[in-house]
Amino acid sequence: MPSSENSIAEKRHTLAHLLAAAVLERYPHAKPTIGPAVDNGFYYDFDFSGGNGAPGEAELSQLEESMREMLASWNAMTGTEVSEKDARDRFSSNPFKLEIIDGIVAAGDPITLYTAGDFTDLCRGGHSEHPNKDIKPDSFTLDRVAGAYWRGDETKPMLTRIYGLAFDTKDELDAFQAQREEAKKRDHRKLGKELDLFTFSDLVGAGLPLYTPKGTIMRDMLAGFSEELQRSYGFQKVWIPHITKIDLYKKSGHWDKFGDELFLVKSQESSDEFALKPMNCPHHTQIYASKPRSYRDLPLRFMETTTCYRDEKTGELSGLTRVRSLTQDDAHVFCRMDQIEQEFENIMTMIKKMYGTLGLSFKARLSFSDPANPAGYLGERSQWDEAEAILEKIAKKLDIQYFIAQGEAAFYGPKIDVMVTDAIGREWQCATEQLDFVQPMRFELEYTAEDGTKKTPVMIHKALLGTIDRFLGVFIEHTAGNFPTWLAPVQVKVVTVSDKQMEYGQQVLQELLAAGVRAELDTASESMGKKIRNAKTEKVPYVLVIGDKEVEDKTVTVESRDAGKLDPLPVSDFIQKTLAEISTRS
Amino acid sequence: MPSSENSIAEKRHTLAHLLAAAVLERYPHAKPTIGPAVDNGFYYDFDFSGGNGAPGEAELSQLEESMREMLASWNAMTGTEVSEKDARDRFSSNPFKLEIIDGIVAAGDPITLYTAGDFTDLCRGGHSEHPNKDIKPDSFTLDRVAGAYWRGDETKPMLTRIYGLAFDTKDELDAFQAQREEAKKRDHRKLGKELDLFTFSDLVGAGLPLYTPKGTIMRDMLAGFSEELQRSYGFQKVWIPHITKIDLYKKSGHWDKFGDELFLVKSQESSDEFALKPMNCPHHTQIYASKPRSYRDLPLRFMETTTCYRDEKTGELSGLTRVRSLTQDDAHVFCRMDQIEQEFENIMTMIKKMYGTLGLSFKARLSFSDPANPAGYLGERSQWDEAEAILEKIAKKLDIQYFIAQGEAAFYGPKIDVMVTDAIGREWQCATEQLDFVQPMRFELEYTAEDGTKKTPVMIHKALLGTIDRFLGVFIEHTAGNFPTWLAPVQVKVVTVSDKQMEYGQQVLQELLAAGVRAELDTASESMGKKIRNAKTEKVPYVLVIGDKEVEDKTVTVESRDAGKLDPLPVSDFIQKTLAEISTRS
Repeated sequence: MPSSENSIAEKRHTLAHLLAAAVLERYPHAKPTIGPAVDNGFYYDFDFSGGNGAPGEAELSQLEESMREMLASWNAMTGTEVSEKDARDRFSSNPFKLEIIDGIVAAGDPITLYTAGDFTDLCRGGHSEHPNKDIKPDSFTLDRVAGAYWRGDETKPMLTRIYGLAFDTKDELDAFQAQREEAKKRDHRKLGKELDLFTFSDLVGAGLPLYTPKGTIMRDMLAGFSEELQRSYGFQKVWIPHITKIDLYKKSGHWDKFGDELFLVKSQESSDEFALKPMNCPHHTQIYASKPRSYRDLPLRFMETTTCYRDEKTGELSGLTRVRSLTQDDAHVFCRMDQIEQEFENIMTMIKKMYGTLGLSFKARLSFSDPANPAGYLGERSQWDEAEAILEKIAKKLDIQYFIAQGEAAFYGPKIDVMVTDAIGREWQCATEQLDFVQPMRFELEYTAEDGTKKTPVMIHKALLGTIDRFLGVFIEHTAGNFPTWLAPVQVKVVTVSDKQMEYGQQVLQELLAAGVRAELDTASESMGKKIRNAKTEKVPYVLVIGDKEVEDKTVTVESRDAGKLDPLPVSDFIQKTLAEISTRS
Repeated sequence: MPSSENSIAEKRHTLAHLLAAAVLERYPHAKPTIGPAVDNGFYYDFDFSGGNGAPGEAELSQLEESMREMLASWNAMTGTEVSEKDARDRFSSNPFKLEIIDGIVAAGDPITLYTAGDFTDLCRGGHSEHPNKDIKPDSFTLDRVAGAYWRGDETKPMLTRIYGLAFDTKDELDAFQAQREEAKKRDHRKLGKELDLFTFSDLVGAGLPLYTPKGTIMRDMLAGFSEELQRSYGFQKVWIPHITKIDLYKKSGHWDKFGDELFLVKSQESSDEFALKPMNCPHHTQIYASKPRSYRDLPLRFMETTTCYRDEKTGELSGLTRVRSLTQDDAHVFCRMDQIEQEFENIMTMIKKMYGTLGLSFKARLSFSDPANPAGYLGERSQWDEAEAILEKIAKKLDIQYFIAQGEAAFYGPKIDVMVTDAIGREWQCATEQLDFVQPMRFELEYTAEDGTKKTPVMIHKALLGTIDRFLGVFIEHTAGNFPTWLAPVQVKVVTVSDKQMEYGQQVLQELLAAGVRAELDTASESMGKKIRNAKTEKVPYVLVIGDKEVEDKTVTVESRDAGKLDPLPVSDFIQKTLAEISTRS
């Protein structure tokens, strides 16, 4: 393999060594510990205690220069196996490396050292063979400094972690940094506060967002869109409580698999053990099971916008994209095997309509069973083959960009996951539809077939938006808060040149509200310019400006957020246009 | 006090003695234990072990006759105090009475015996003085036999409890029995199953209903009605999670008061302690507190249809009327003291509209502070006086039937509770509006007043339906399942005379569905008569019958559940009339 094809991970790993070499040159007392390749770059953790000083962010550019200078001389990187004694001798003054050696010895692995230029490190390998040929000097940069506990254990010493970014080319590095900069501006946690959409409370807890009136409008509009689509395909709303006895999950099998990821609920009045539901399917089976079903009743399609709870680690929570309270537009179809093609097609059609309307492109990942391990899946092989063929057929028929992920199916059935690409090129997993051969069996669900025998239905799990909280987080960043009119919490802001036009302003406001447009009149004692700027900060789609001329002509002058200033027009015309835009979700 | 004015409780207590006397006459080996007056009658618990036989329900009429015979001779009932020794001697063969004597002695109370006719019982008194004059022989009846543990303790002996019903007059007894019979027919647990509205699952747990598509329509329609009313008075929807760190309740003060009634939630990933929310106000304060508020922003009105959880005792759960998962149409108004009159009036107007529309009469209980104990309440006395005067003024202004309950206010503010009377005369507490001077202080909520100072708002808690589950249970019984068209899960059933008219039937169905009417076409292979009977069992408001004549004339013949058979009319006319009925909720 020519060196130019060395994987990006090997380059990043090599750069971690280079960073350690540069640090030791300037900080000879530093004790290097570990330095792996990570997403987008690399890091190295150092112990700077026991010497004079540690680098801060101000020192990173100097270190970066040292790295570039050294890189020129790193024409090869070679490994050599050494004895435990040699290794311990070499790192005798570095207790961290000695601890790593303990681990290698305990595992019975060989101890290897890697050398490039004048620098040798304890390492298991995986580097560029010819660093100065493989790595472009402008393809990396040092990014930031952070604290990190040795072994990630807060009882152990605090080390200094230096992060670097690295790509194959400068263009890729620039693109990543630009995307990150753009993402920072669009950060939904920042915009969520500025646009007054949601809040967190220390008293309520991390990962548990509270939605303000404006954020709730957006949640309701998104959920309403999903429900409307589903209703048109025969889905019916049901309602389930947010808790259950754990018996339900023992029966479904989830208790064994996910028991330690549940929020457990303790009753002080009953000896029953309860849990907060992390998913809805087991509850929905109980509605199916509440009365006898006939083949004529199928498909039965239960949908619900409902909140699940997952006991995520506090450190992994992030704004709306990783929460403990997940509201989902979930649904379950109970049907016969000969009905899954139509049902999958319906669901995929809904997904296409939804993401098309929302202006988000996507590709579908078809997660199939592993042909090398057919025994790893429950259900009959012939059903799997049939189902997988159907999923691919539907993707082709609906002209959806897709790829097949062999071996990525759940043990209970194949599935389609929808990967959305946002405005700055990031990918997010949102919608999903999954076939399930297993839960109907576990819950002994049945229907009376045409021939009078009892048969087991199959189940399809589906979500269009997925988790609405997460989707909203993604969508805020995708649009940078410039929501389409149908989703905007405030659709129209009425602004008068002075208080003289306030009476007509009120009249315009009432007409808008009566027509069902979410409108506000700015009555603050500010200049018109300031009011318009405020409305733009709030990213309101339309500002209606009213001066003497508009009062006289019974018109409004429209400042469109997306199309700039428009010609004056009668209020009723504006309302008609806006209602059409809202009703078509355009 | 003339004997005719003896309270009903005294008559019932006397009848318990009479029952014991009658039982001992026929079952001399019986050991009487305790026999109190209860709602609607009385009971007595007996130990029938150690003899031959115990009465079953078949024996109740004989016992009842014995009671009537004995009653004639009970012209006086007199008490006398006895020594401990005399008491123990008299009841030496009855260990239950001896245990009661132990308790009386331990408490240092006097031991009294009451005698009427030939029967003497250990008793603390409270009887009719002249039983045969006070108690009408036809005003009572023995009702049923049940098992009951001595002292309600399942580790103690099982006794036989005989229940009796007793009122002042036969008419009242008859009325009670008729109401109970009628209530049994209307039992929402029975109708809920027959009409396929909700279900319970042993795997999910008691008190946790799951709503089928039909029941969910009703929940959504009721919640939607409430939200529509509230929206017209400026209420805005918000959204909160169903759990919180208990810190929230420590701050609100609920932890000290209700800590042991909460479902506690245990995280396996975090050391935070969580609870399922039993109410929504503390969460809503956190949305108020999420940004600075000005006097101009008030009133702020947050509403939400959301589910609370209360750790009710399993034995107290009953269908939908006592559940562990309570979905409420809750709201909180944050306002200035000078705004409470208007806000209370708005809420009371909504309540009037809601219950008027639903055909339920109500009276309002105004729960005020206790003038004898003004120190038992938080907040300033002048605010209480002002608020109580306002509540009464509004009740008068809106011409609402009301009564004042002195001393029934919560410690945090006065309130209005709405007591609804159902079709068979039972009272249910539903809507509520409560003033709260305390929580805004505890959470340090504030707004900037016109003069620039920081002030504390007051809070109003309100629910129109109250708990929707409970309301639905009440409403099912009130209507006996004959829901008004706007609430009926299936509004119209299309029935054809034979399969010949099925094509036209389909066409009619599609027209109904396109107009937004919840309609079904009965395609079963049954006679027309059977199909119409089925629709009536399902209590569908309108059945559209289609024969050859209707196909030819392009009409439908309407069988109205409430108005009988109507003249044939064009489908479009029927749709128009029905939509008008639905949109006005008439």
